[in-house]
Amino acid sequence: MKISIERAALLTALGHVQNVVERRNTIPILSNVLMTAKDGALTLVATDLDIEISEATSADVDAPGDITAPAHTLYDIARKLPDGAQVSLKIGADDRLEVDAGRSHFTLPLLPAGDFPKMTADGFTHNFVLKAGELRRLIDKTKFAISTEETRYYLNGIYMHAHDGLLRAVATDGHRLALSEMELPAGAADLPGVIIPRKTIAEIRRLIDSGDGEVSLSVSEAKIRFHYGTAVLTSKLIDGSFPDYERVIPKGNTKELVIDNAIFAKAVDRVATISAEKSRSVKLSLSQDSLALAVNNPEHGNAHEDLMVDYSAEPLEIGFNAKYLLDVAGQIEGRDATFYLDSPAAPALVKDSEDPSSLFVLMPLRV
Amino acid sequence: MKISIERAALLTALGHVQNVVERRNTIPILSNVLMTAKDGALTLVATDLDIEISEATSADVDAPGDITAPAHTLYDIARKLPDGAQVSLKIGADDRLEVDAGRSHFTLPLLPAGDFPKMTADGFTHNFVLKAGELRRLIDKTKFAISTEETRYYLNGIYMHAHDGLLRAVATDGHRLALSEMELPAGAADLPGVIIPRKTIAEIRRLIDSGDGEVSLSVSEAKIRFHYGTAVLTSKLIDGSFPDYERVIPKGNTKELVIDNAIFAKAVDRVATISAEKSRSVKLSLSQDSLALAVNNPEHGNAHEDLMVDYSAEPLEIGFNAKYLLDVAGQIEGRDATFYLDSPAAPALVKDSEDPSSLFVLMPLRV
Repeated sequence: MKISIERAALLTALGHVQNVVERRNTIPILSNVLMTAKDGALTLVATDLDIEISEATSADVDAPGDITAPAHTLYDIARKLPDGAQVSLKIGADDRLEVDAGRSHFTLPLLPAGDFPKMTADGFTHNFVLKAGELRRLIDKTKFAISTEETRYYLNGIYMHAHDGLLRAVATDGHRLALSEMELPAGAADLPGVIIPRKTIAEIRRLIDSGDGEVSLSVSEAKIRFHYGTAVLTSKLIDGSFPDYERVIPKGNTKELVIDNAIFAKAVDRVATISAEKSRSVKLSLSQDSLALAVNNPEHGNAHEDLMVDYSAEPLEIGFNAKYLLDVAGQIEGRDATFYLDSPAAPALVKDSEDPSSLFVLMPLRV
Repeated sequence: MKISIERAALLTALGHVQNVVERRNTIPILSNVLMTAKDGALTLVATDLDIEISEATSADVDAPGDITAPAHTLYDIARKLPDGAQVSLKIGADDRLEVDAGRSHFTLPLLPAGDFPKMTADGFTHNFVLKAGELRRLIDKTKFAISTEETRYYLNGIYMHAHDGLLRAVATDGHRLALSEMELPAGAADLPGVIIPRKTIAEIRRLIDSGDGEVSLSVSEAKIRFHYGTAVLTSKLIDGSFPDYERVIPKGNTKELVIDNAIFAKAVDRVATISAEKSRSVKLSLSQDSLALAVNNPEHGNAHEDLMVDYSAEPLEIGFNAKYLLDVAGQIEGRDATFYLDSPAAPALVKDSEDPSSLFVLMPLRV
């Protein structure tokens, strides 16, 4: 293999794939990136055995070939080379990778391309296309609610499925739930429910971070694949049953509270100053057009704040975790958030005045 | 006690003192800030028993008095209150601190002012004045070389002393040494050597971060005090003997290497990509007007970079820790750095083309 490539192109491509490589690996080749040079292109592949990301970029290929080299080291080198540098990559006399750019010369250990684990991916039954912005939205509105409890592995991802002519993303950790949906794209008609793991969500979110364009998704029973530009991310799905989340979305909550979301978030943040680290419980006391936020902590003191709100149902006292209130407030795009409440022990439904396609559920705390 | 104060003034004053308060304290009152209100001023004092910082700010004092309240909580509250808020602080009916601002109301537990530990400070034998910018410079040029090895406690600070009509700051960890000096201010004539602890250095550096004006220093055998504006920082000194550092500053190094500091730093950073985490050793090979940087790592590969330099002494190979080279390069203000070298085993002296009042010493590594 012998190629020449612009530093910026190499950096971008390595930047897309290297993040999936774990810092510590018991299997040495998993620290490496597979590099395949042919037909005027360099293709990079990195994997952690659960997720595989590949990226192709154009390069001057003097001699085709494939090798694997340390992913993070190669990325660091590309990062530190001066802007505009032309980078030459070739296999040297002693079977090592020679990296040359200007007056800089690096020699890196190689491992054979044949030993690099390839993720099998076939049997994709559903193929559909989303705009990058649509996928970003589905992810951003829900990912904060993904559970981090490893024992509840079936909650460690975003549940994506077709529902009533819509494509739905749902995440929950049992304390809160976030749901966002959009028109069902062609090809996703009877999409079975799939649970996309947290790390996969983070990686695809990174890939589509600022871009426009479209993302092609392919789904099988066990895997999901995202095509975006020249990048392909293939991931295992979580093998488990997502709970029947519909049951926890309140249907008959009639006590309606409309609040200015920014004012509410700041007030919650202030009163939460007093809460103990573990149970960050805030009490909401509602009466006609008035909301009192209170935190009472025997050790750290008390906090109280009054807000003018839109509320005309009967008085109600209900408690929530301050962090969960702030997480939801952070997802509200409109000026107002609407809380649909029932009783102190019943979950609350929260909606965004600007975004009818998302909803949030918060379990109350005893206060 | 009952006062009213602008949120901005309270925030600035708390910001200056609260950082010294440790997050975890076995003695509860050390988590608190002492607040004394009288004569149109609120004075705040915080301490960790080694450092005491006080700050005075003007306030409307309706009833004078003194109390102590949780420092970090009070700071968080001030931080989260809206800009422009007027804050009322008073002792409530149940002997708690009542904090009111707009629609926000907080109640915080108090501890009696009489229990707050006061740092004794008398017997100051030397008093002198530095410009804030001068003190910043003495600190910034040297603090990176302060040792973090607790067993060598006498190296855990900056050694300040009068030397040949100059005020000198020196720090060393045995691997490198940094020295910066300035004209001796009036009053510092026979200043005995004092070792100012790392945390004190960080705190005074924070206080004078962006300001102009003057800092008054008072020194006794065991303590140092800084007056800056309305802030007073008093600190214990390290009770130990700073080593005879003059012995390690090379006097007869005649091999002179002049390098463009920015180009050198980038090249060192690049070749260091290859080095193992622990021994980040870079080899410098010098010959007529040429410097080759090299890192050889059996496991991770090799890196090599050639630089055009100004060197006309006989060829020399010498190794340094890459991080230490970069730390020194970070302190060079001029375009060029000059290395004065002798032999592969002899320490190097580094000077800044723009700043004749600072110098750096680097111990070589075997390569």
